Amino acid sequence: MDTCLLLDAGSGGLASQRLTAQCFLRHFANPLLARLDDAALLRDVHAPIAVSTDSYTVTPLLFPGGSIGTLAVHGTVNDVSMLGARPQYISCGFILEEGLSLELLESLVQDMAGAAKEAGVLIVTGDTKVVPRGACDKMFINTTGIGSIFADPTPSGHNARVGDAVLVSGALGDHGLTIMGSREHLSFLSDVTSDSAPLNHMIAEVINAAGPVHVLRDPTRGGLAATLNEISEQSGVSMLLEEEAIPVHESVKSGCSFLGLDPLYLANEGKCICILPENRAEDALAAMRASPYGVEAARIGTVVGDKACRVTLQTRIGGRRILSMPEGVPLPRIC
Amino acid sequence: MDTCLLLDAGSGGLASQRLTAQCFLRHFANPLLARLDDAALLRDVHAPIAVSTDSYTVTPLLFPGGSIGTLAVHGTVNDVSMLGARPQYISCGFILEEGLSLELLESLVQDMAGAAKEAGVLIVTGDTKVVPRGACDKMFINTTGIGSIFADPTPSGHNARVGDAVLVSGALGDHGLTIMGSREHLSFLSDVTSDSAPLNHMIAEVINAAGPVHVLRDPTRGGLAATLNEISEQSGVSMLLEEEAIPVHESVKSGCSFLGLDPLYLANEGKCICILPENRAEDALAAMRASPYGVEAARIGTVVGDKACRVTLQTRIGGRRILSMPEGVPLPRIC
Repeated sequence: MDTCLLLDAGSGGLASQRLTAQCFLRHFANPLLARLDDAALLRDVHAPIAVSTDSYTVTPLLFPGGSIGTLAVHGTVNDVSMLGARPQYISCGFILEEGLSLELLESLVQDMAGAAKEAGVLIVTGDTKVVPRGACDKMFINTTGIGSIFADPTPSGHNARVGDAVLVSGALGDHGLTIMGSREHLSFLSDVTSDSAPLNHMIAEVINAAGPVHVLRDPTRGGLAATLNEISEQSGVSMLLEEEAIPVHESVKSGCSFLGLDPLYLANEGKCICILPENRAEDALAAMRASPYGVEAARIGTVVGDKACRVTLQTRIGGRRILSMPEGVPLPRIC
Repeated sequence: MDTCLLLDAGSGGLASQRLTAQCFLRHFANPLLARLDDAALLRDVHAPIAVSTDSYTVTPLLFPGGSIGTLAVHGTVNDVSMLGARPQYISCGFILEEGLSLELLESLVQDMAGAAKEAGVLIVTGDTKVVPRGACDKMFINTTGIGSIFADPTPSGHNARVGDAVLVSGALGDHGLTIMGSREHLSFLSDVTSDSAPLNHMIAEVINAAGPVHVLRDPTRGGLAATLNEISEQSGVSMLLEEEAIPVHESVKSGCSFLGLDPLYLANEGKCICILPENRAEDALAAMRASPYGVEAARIGTVVGDKACRVTLQTRIGGRRILSMPEGVPLPRIC
């Protein structure tokens, strides 16, 4: 048996068939994938549907709290969920570097299979390319997710309204800081763990409990700051946040202050922002807190009428500062 | 203005917004994409649906007859079409290397937009990652396509039946040989051109004219040999092909014979194999030949009852040889 991936596993010939059968079909096992036609045939997806795609290039491939495998499922499941949809199916495209350890590949595929099982989605179609040594850094994964939308009206970044409450489902900055700590071997960050998690079940409970919400978004790259600025711009509103109300773990706070980072600009992979009418905020918070992925949910602010589309932070010491759209790149390849 | 891509274009911040607005939204312009929510909302996709994904890593990025941009659209449009579906929407994930020429990126995005327009599909959601220099070779594109299936019953590699006719929509080997010539600067291959093309309109005409067909597949990686062997195995049948009937351009024949390659093992990106009851073969061929992408369509063989699942070639000189599943990798990164 080979222990590392050879170029011919991407050839479309016998070696491709072996890799598909021994690794992908075995761990992703389901009858839709097993057809192995040029496309998967899906019978129970009903319009309106949500479709989202993401490529994952995170380094290192394994980190505290997850791996590129869990991330590739969670990230796409969450993006589909943010449209008030039930993620049902995922496609999966691997770009693999010649020489990759087959044991590592298999363990990452198992991570994907486990994450898909928890989220209740099936991996139904895929593609594998193997590129020569040096043409990519170990492995990249693209996943595209599909699901039927149940929320009516559908949440959108364009729908924030003046007076709405701004909620977040838990503490911020864990994923971004974990990747930094893991990549740079920063031992003082050893108690920080990625929040990578599937939010679809929690989102369904929130909409069930609080009715249709105005906005759902997951604050990944660029963190809370980027996501709220985007929503402000799309909806033509401003937001006022209470710094003290924004949940951030103590370990993340101290790690960030040591490194000169702001947790509100760091990526999250298991959190969502929910914006909805004030009178339904408590129901939504209760539904979040009932989920294992929302126990630290909090109301962090309010949508206000200022047309400047600004996100302002009421600081602990009583001042105000503008939380601007991020510039530059503090940390590449965090997802 | 920057002339090459910087790392911050993948940050999720201001630079990401600029690249999205100035390049992707401008060329892919459509109202579904312009929403910029975490997922695209599609209203007119109806079950059963076909979904297919492919990552494109071809090198060089530009080659006679196409580019990674046209390929990324054609390849996925064709895979969706092979289920008897009308491709409607495409997602698009870019992995870009820091330092990539923005002019090149834009021209490849324009290629994608043009290919999508011809095929009649909309690019509705996407994702961009920028990785540091050396972490990928210039650019990779993943596309995932979705479309409603109109063929009933749906064609599948499992459905070939004894007595069926085996058709191919045109000459074989052009794409694979073009990439080889282009990469190795082989001047004697300068008159060979990739066949990269969208087959969806032709497929619709074939099904319209000949009724539901048993099998549709596009012979990409591994060429005709890999695809027919897969179908034989999936359907539990054998096939007998007439070597003389298989269309191969003279320039490809002579290039292959010089290089010691077999055109039946080379990739195609604008051809399909169609297997259907003999009495409807002429209608299907006529429909193919009426399309600009099927003028050289031909019947190349018959499905026979031998349970060994073999593909056998009746050669010009009267002998028979087995067309086996490819082993090894004659040419990586052809798509």
